[in-house]
Amino acid sequence: MRILFIGFGNVAKETARILNEKELYPGLDLAPIVVGIFTQRHGGVENTKGLNLKSILNNLKERNSLVLEEHELSCLKPLEAAQKLDYDVLVELSALSISEKGEPASSYIYAALERGKSVVSANKGPVAFNYHKLKKLADEKGAKYMFESAVMDGAPVFNLVQRCMKGCTIKGFSGILNGTTNYILSYMENGGTFEEGVRQAQEAGIAESDPTMDTDGWDPAAKTAAFANVFMDAGITPYDVERSGISGVTPEMCQDALKRGKRLKLMCRAYNVDGKIIASVKVEEVNKDDVMALISHFGAAIRIESDLMHPNTIIQDRPDLLDTAYGVIEDLISISDKNLY
Amino acid sequence: MRILFIGFGNVAKETARILNEKELYPGLDLAPIVVGIFTQRHGGVENTKGLNLKSILNNLKERNSLVLEEHELSCLKPLEAAQKLDYDVLVELSALSISEKGEPASSYIYAALERGKSVVSANKGPVAFNYHKLKKLADEKGAKYMFESAVMDGAPVFNLVQRCMKGCTIKGFSGILNGTTNYILSYMENGGTFEEGVRQAQEAGIAESDPTMDTDGWDPAAKTAAFANVFMDAGITPYDVERSGISGVTPEMCQDALKRGKRLKLMCRAYNVDGKIIASVKVEEVNKDDVMALISHFGAAIRIESDLMHPNTIIQDRPDLLDTAYGVIEDLISISDKNLY
Repeated sequence: MRILFIGFGNVAKETARILNEKELYPGLDLAPIVVGIFTQRHGGVENTKGLNLKSILNNLKERNSLVLEEHELSCLKPLEAAQKLDYDVLVELSALSISEKGEPASSYIYAALERGKSVVSANKGPVAFNYHKLKKLADEKGAKYMFESAVMDGAPVFNLVQRCMKGCTIKGFSGILNGTTNYILSYMENGGTFEEGVRQAQEAGIAESDPTMDTDGWDPAAKTAAFANVFMDAGITPYDVERSGISGVTPEMCQDALKRGKRLKLMCRAYNVDGKIIASVKVEEVNKDDVMALISHFGAAIRIESDLMHPNTIIQDRPDLLDTAYGVIEDLISISDKNLY
Repeated sequence: MRILFIGFGNVAKETARILNEKELYPGLDLAPIVVGIFTQRHGGVENTKGLNLKSILNNLKERNSLVLEEHELSCLKPLEAAQKLDYDVLVELSALSISEKGEPASSYIYAALERGKSVVSANKGPVAFNYHKLKKLADEKGAKYMFESAVMDGAPVFNLVQRCMKGCTIKGFSGILNGTTNYILSYMENGGTFEEGVRQAQEAGIAESDPTMDTDGWDPAAKTAAFANVFMDAGITPYDVERSGISGVTPEMCQDALKRGKRLKLMCRAYNVDGKIIASVKVEEVNKDDVMALISHFGAAIRIESDLMHPNTIIQDRPDLLDTAYGVIEDLISISDKNLY
């Protein structure tokens, strides 16, 4: 399997680390050749025979540069790399852009799928804005478009609904999908300020670089749209999600709720109501005997409702980059192995 | 797809009802022909052209008999039906037997697999006692042996680990896997007696007919062995699970724990400790901020730990027969559709 990376931030580096330290993970049977790594700001490198991941990771760590002695910087831009290089799977890990409506990631993905090449993406933007178009193209071209890590990192949610709930019609879901706001709300319950909570989430590497993407609810709105599009064929974008963030929430409000046996949580919901998808992201008071009240720190959870089962809830404990990178790797394994069960 | 039922109790009836009322479930695309229904005590009926499920369900309801005017009772015994009839998939739904070490269910399953016919079973006995042997035979014969409903009903757990955690090595799991004991413990917390709790669980149709299977911990031990065998290649039986039930627990003990901010729960655990699988079922004090403390009534939950993700927990809300029947149906869809993702 020949892989092209577009985007090489923390998730990509962790993915590369795992692939490079396979001996630590006895169940992992995947030996891809990385033929290109392209970034928006730091240029790209390519080698049809395969790049040396170990050298690249070391070089990035020591010199913050993709360029090694043996690799000159490629003259291609990321989109051109997707259009022109010889690879099997595009691993698209660029950053979410709400204001650009999922671009340029969607264009990278489109370019790969149009050539019949499969795509693994941890980017929620394209799923939130362009799922229908991209999925249709993938199906037409016999390629796969996979994105388990786009929401709740590698925790199996997209794949679970697709692979393990066959025959079910999803009626809706509710959950906590944004670690940063969940962390800040927990932090304010304990007496901290909003601003200090933001700063700590940034230090932990969880908050988006622009924290208003989290605190104004855009990130969870994109995740809600992504789940709704994939689970319920909603055809919505983050702009269709009724959205309020946590910027109006004070430590006093959090503590007051706590005194009444409740917790304030930024709840994401989408339900099929008589054929129309109603989606929202808003702060709600959650009872203490609701599992959502136990989601602390950067955890996440989703409760899925369907016609053929009572609700199932998937809870993710304190995820970090390992989880996101694993989701990418799970998708790669699924593409490499047709004979899965 | 031609189906043979062995066992036709509540789960089988609910499965048949769903298949017979497909129009209620728009995502369900499965039209099997039921060529035989065989039971241990009430005999069996067969029809190579397909039995009329609706008439059979009505007849069972009104006259508690499998025999319709147009169907004479078959002269075959269940095992002979598995060995001789012309079918594609055996749906094995007979009752759990610990004392018989998963028999006669294991023999029915073996007979089908030996003929290269796939099997769907909701029976935890064969997975707990004979998983290796049955899985090996299935692989040799190119048949499928599926059992999603054997533990936690239709909630995706077996299938989730197999289909959505590829490459992961499972390190262990913990959870609440027996609804009856969980109900009784909750009931005693609220001041009820053990005996009345048992009676109510029986009335709800959740307790095994012999409640000591639940209260002495045999049912959860079988489930623990089943998960350990499938997830971690444990090769254990319920007899290898360190087991204590809830018969020594009093209402006072439950209420005393509650006063200290804890709840008593019958926790199932299995972990790979330096290559050896250590499995247990015992009453533990669970902290109130642990999601396991929120599993009330007949709910269930499992927390799965692996090398490539932080733990994920799957919680099942108040499951009933619908969930168990759906697990059977999900397995049938998986067998019927090779091209799943």
